[in-house]
Amino acid sequence: MQAALVGVTGYAGMILYQLLKGHPNVKKIHLYDHKLTESAPLSTVAPVFKSESKPVFPYDPQQIMTDNDVVFFATSAGVTSKLSQPYLANGFPVIDLSGDMRLNDAGDYQKWYHKPAAPENLMRQAQYGLAEFESARGQTYVANPGCYATATLLGLAPLVQQHLIAVDSIVVDAKSGTSGAGKKLSTTTHFTEANDNLQIYKPNQHQHIPEIVQELKNWDPTISTIQFMTTLLPITRGIMSTIYARLNHGVDQATILKAYHDTYDDQPFVHVTDTDLPTIKQVIGTNNCDIGLAVNSQTGFVMVASVIDNMLKGAAGQAVQNLNQLFNYEPTAGLDLQPTLI
Amino acid sequence: MQAALVGVTGYAGMILYQLLKGHPNVKKIHLYDHKLTESAPLSTVAPVFKSESKPVFPYDPQQIMTDNDVVFFATSAGVTSKLSQPYLANGFPVIDLSGDMRLNDAGDYQKWYHKPAAPENLMRQAQYGLAEFESARGQTYVANPGCYATATLLGLAPLVQQHLIAVDSIVVDAKSGTSGAGKKLSTTTHFTEANDNLQIYKPNQHQHIPEIVQELKNWDPTISTIQFMTTLLPITRGIMSTIYARLNHGVDQATILKAYHDTYDDQPFVHVTDTDLPTIKQVIGTNNCDIGLAVNSQTGFVMVASVIDNMLKGAAGQAVQNLNQLFNYEPTAGLDLQPTLI
Amino acid sequence: MQAALVGVTGYAGMILYQLLKGHPNVKKIHLYDHKLTESAPLSTVAPVFKSESKPVFPYDPQQIMTDNDVVFFATSAGVTSKLSQPYLANGFPVIDLSGDMRLNDAGDYQKWYHKPAAPENLMRQAQYGLAEFESARGQTYVANPGCYATATLLGLAPLVQQHLIAVDSIVVDAKSGTSGAGKKLSTTTHFTEANDNLQIYKPNQHQHIPEIVQELKNWDPTISTIQFMTTLLPITRGIMSTIYARLNHGVDQATILKAYHDTYDDQPFVHVTDTDLPTIKQVIGTNNCDIGLAVNSQTGFVMVASVIDNMLKGAAGQAVQNLNQLFNYEPTAGLDLQPTLI
Amino acid sequence: MQAALVGVTGYAGMILYQLLKGHPNVKKIHLYDHKLTESAPLSTVAPVFKSESKPVFPYDPQQIMTDNDVVFFATSAGVTSKLSQPYLANGFPVIDLSGDMRLNDAGDYQKWYHKPAAPENLMRQAQYGLAEFESARGQTYVANPGCYATATLLGLAPLVQQHLIAVDSIVVDAKSGTSGAGKKLSTTTHFTEANDNLQIYKPNQHQHIPEIVQELKNWDPTISTIQFMTTLLPITRGIMSTIYARLNHGVDQATILKAYHDTYDDQPFVHVTDTDLPTIKQVIGTNNCDIGLAVNSQTGFVMVASVIDNMLKGAAGQAVQNLNQLFNYEPTAGLDLQPTLI
Repeated sequence: MQAALVGVTGYAGMILYQLLKGHPNVKKIHLYDHKLTESAPLSTVAPVFKSESKPVFPYDPQQIMTDNDVVFFATSAGVTSKLSQPYLANGFPVIDLSGDMRLNDAGDYQKWYHKPAAPENLMRQAQYGLAEFESARGQTYVANPGCYATATLLGLAPLVQQHLIAVDSIVVDAKSGTSGAGKKLSTTTHFTEANDNLQIYKPNQHQHIPEIVQELKNWDPTISTIQFMTTLLPITRGIMSTIYARLNHGVDQATILKAYHDTYDDQPFVHVTDTDLPTIKQVIGTNNCDIGLAVNSQTGFVMVASVIDNMLKGAAGQAVQNLNQLFNYEPTAGLDLQPTLI
Repeated sequence: MQAALVGVTGYAGMILYQLLKGHPNVKKIHLYDHKLTESAPLSTVAPVFKSESKPVFPYDPQQIMTDNDVVFFATSAGVTSKLSQPYLANGFPVIDLSGDMRLNDAGDYQKWYHKPAAPENLMRQAQYGLAEFESARGQTYVANPGCYATATLLGLAPLVQQHLIAVDSIVVDAKSGTSGAGKKLSTTTHFTEANDNLQIYKPNQHQHIPEIVQELKNWDPTISTIQFMTTLLPITRGIMSTIYARLNHGVDQATILKAYHDTYDDQPFVHVTDTDLPTIKQVIGTNNCDIGLAVNSQTGFVMVASVIDNMLKGAAGQAVQNLNQLFNYEPTAGLDLQPTLI
Repeated sequence: MQAALVGVTGYAGMILYQLLKGHPNVKKIHLYDHKLTESAPLSTVAPVFKSESKPVFPYDPQQIMTDNDVVFFATSAGVTSKLSQPYLANGFPVIDLSGDMRLNDAGDYQKWYHKPAAPENLMRQAQYGLAEFESARGQTYVANPGCYATATLLGLAPLVQQHLIAVDSIVVDAKSGTSGAGKKLSTTTHFTEANDNLQIYKPNQHQHIPEIVQELKNWDPTISTIQFMTTLLPITRGIMSTIYARLNHGVDQATILKAYHDTYDDQPFVHVTDTDLPTIKQVIGTNNCDIGLAVNSQTGFVMVASVIDNMLKGAAGQAVQNLNQLFNYEPTAGLDLQPTLI
Repeated sequence: MQAALVGVTGYAGMILYQLLKGHPNVKKIHLYDHKLTESAPLSTVAPVFKSESKPVFPYDPQQIMTDNDVVFFATSAGVTSKLSQPYLANGFPVIDLSGDMRLNDAGDYQKWYHKPAAPENLMRQAQYGLAEFESARGQTYVANPGCYATATLLGLAPLVQQHLIAVDSIVVDAKSGTSGAGKKLSTTTHFTEANDNLQIYKPNQHQHIPEIVQELKNWDPTISTIQFMTTLLPITRGIMSTIYARLNHGVDQATILKAYHDTYDDQPFVHVTDTDLPTIKQVIGTNNCDIGLAVNSQTGFVMVASVIDNMLKGAAGQAVQNLNQLFNYEPTAGLDLQPTLI
């Protein structure tokens, strides 16, 4: 199969390109950039790939659909909201790593993204692709989940789906490395400011909040909101979503562990580490989400720690999971990665 | 006045020694080390002070009481539980930076510290010294608060004292730099393991939990426990205590801000930054506790971020605050410090 | 005395402002900003000083000379080259932290700074202010040395002045934290790029090279150039200049150590640590330059490690040293700083 | 083929195990640990591999030779010096990642390693395995090079082999991340000490010096020593060896670049980046050595920057290169790795 990738210059695009190169079913990758007006070698467009002279083509949806079997968008928010129409109209498969088509509601998009939304009928045609819960098989347009949303939803799923917690007690304290903020320069991610520091940002305003709530509602319609806070860590890669919730009456550690194992033991990428709490480092370099927990019998709360590599399970890796579902490949094809370890 | 310092080799002791050297009312500092059998120059005992030939004396309580007006203990847990008796018996002022005398209950101490406790009657004579709430004036034995306890209690005080939140909804996600773990080598604080990582540790078992609960109970006797988790950051200095709680009916942001300002506007070291959330870096190098907050009207929760320099407000700085109260010095004497900034 | 400070928003300006506030002889500080058109509170101009409502005035040389006894410029390169004339014309004392007036040769300035130079006659009137070697006493315009130049020149001085090495064998491998690059955002100092990395930059092109050579020539006119390379460290503050040179015949470790001690034992801020090699951390927070060395009897080379806090001895601290010399204050006035230690 | 690995618990052993698992020609890996007395699951012996129940066997040379085609030692210095005899006696292939058999001279070993050496006749039978210059084909015992030695020798080879520089002017300022120091805890690698710091260590005493000199002598017998210094960076992985040398008369940048390209253009893992100086980050995750340079026509020096991932090209990766040579596999088998990028 042949795959198109739009946006190889951003961090997620770079990593996705590496994964696709290692994917056994992807025979050819065509690169496109919506800022180019004529073709240029990859080594020029993305100097990090210095030895690769492969061309990057200007963006052309017709060409993309003619020459490829699927297109990945690793573009910033605000791009695919404008570009999604022809693919949906032609039933051509898209895997969109941006947040543009994750929400079903145009008003929500505008409120949280501060940008014009795609037409709402298109938004509704896109399917949210949290790979462990929604198969991309048979879909046209897969909205690949956000990094924070992935770690948080995987951490919450068994608790919410099996009604083990008081949903109005959920508190999520999520932390991310700086790569999540992308290549764009900012004071917050200036080394002198970010190093030796911890910075809460976008309090109650992070654009992954509506995405999390939308998915939680599918699992439990009584949920209408969530207390969720994002903090910038002085590390490059990785997310930890630390989740707190009050256990429902009669729920104990054994019940909870069983729920997590029932949910994830068949999943190749989600590992339940029981009461051995995972560190961020143990998942870096992999598409894994490791989840551990601690029940506090005094307070009646459970704390769940869910960790991912934001560039892999939180972006490019999950995009490949969705590719594998779309085309009925082995679930782990292209994702048999070993952790960085140190 | 003349001050004795026992334990100049640990991180808190080093910083305390620096503060005492800069304190306008401290005329002379005598150093003691309970591991020495004979005097040795400071440059040998603590090579970080390479140019100082000042003697460090073996530990001798009689000598300490004869030659000084106060003694500071910057020793590890388990030391002052054995040594506190003569000072209490003689009414000689002690400021104890260790956790040995913070709790009133010997059973609690043994449960959380995994060490034999001091006799409970002595434990009860020691006064917990959270400087903004308990004056050390007139006290004999001041138990200087723990670093996490300081950040957390200062962050919670207005909410709990003024009954603005549902106390059973409190969740504290606290983060600390590695210096809080001291000089003792461990795998957790080995650079290769700690760098680029985030590690939750001692889940529901941190020894500052009973200290926090004991103090909260003074403010609201209905509190019997707290959901509190500690995470190791890949930074050297600083603590952020991120506190979540559900607001009581009718409490809004204005009410809360007023409560914080009423509580702290007269305090020289606690700064309420309103909705401008503080970063760890902004307090490093100072004895300040900066507190900001974000009310979420959708969830009905408030998030409070309370940051301190764990070595200063979380240890040596607060010890000097307690000294100033004990001896009726200016509250800011010796603590007029400027932030590191960058 | 009253001091004017132009440029409080940059890193060096912030630190200098802190030092001046703590200086016993500075009664009043007036702040100016050449980008302002009308006065504004400091908390607005430099939000890092959130609690300070002190006014920052628009730049006005006449006002500065009327209201102050000295002016500090903590502005970027290219500013004082245009502004220096009135001060020199009026004999009004200036301490200039920028590189604009350090070189004597306008052509050199243009070559290395890629900007128009000040008139060469003004450049020659400015005195280079490496505080251990040129007294600012009696000067009008002091060009405060660059950070790399300070560490390197102090490390080289005894070797060059006393002709202990083959000057054409000198190799300097200098490393700096990111704060040296200032607040300006760049890809090189983006956290995601700088963290976990080491980046050589401006190879053979750093603008401190001609400044170092100019000063070395004063000490040994046979020197015409120097092999000097700069590397960006993933730390915030601090410089280490690692210097290598071949020893002249008959020079051994004892000779060298004597030379360093003869040169620096009377200097309050330069500490010769002999063969105990200094780390960057040990000088952070101080105006010190610590220098240690290792003689290799097999290769006949000496390696000298010279470390400074680039913000203090490398910028604001040395500026205060120059102030003290200009006004005949105690050499350590305002600079009695304790190291950060951890 | 079947491979034995002794020492999977150390950092290099962990990474080597990962590489062998991904090697197309390695059908089975047997793990051994010389500290075990009976078999234990890998998840217990090296908890980082939590999901692997594969057995780790006690060390038994006879068993190793019976069940495998090659043995890798990823053990600390001082182990294989005692264990090498049976393999050499039986002509059984060994790839030894430790430094025990790299030197030919027992006296040198004892001087630099401070441990008893292997019998010198055995030391001479071991072949130093800098993969770009000595083929392991037909060898029995390959001494895999040290990390610093690899970066430095690859950086120096064209200059020394083609006599382009004055060899007595060579100065190497080498820097490494903390993983090079291994899992062993030490104050130097305690996070609180190593973070925000730069520490020169083992001045003129690093055990890789004699190994570098021994190899350089093969290339130019007039070399008898080298000026080489090691510095600990506050990063986890990676080495940069910054090399300075005076160019011989008539040698210019074009000559040098040609020499590097002639030497390395056929090598799959060494990339000459010309005057685009490499960063450490660009090789992390790969077996590459990237080399760039800057000629200074004023000083007549060349600076060469040579970067590697110390865990891969500096240890486990080069060990696999040697495996490929020993068994005549594709040179890049098992080493087709993509850089971490961010």
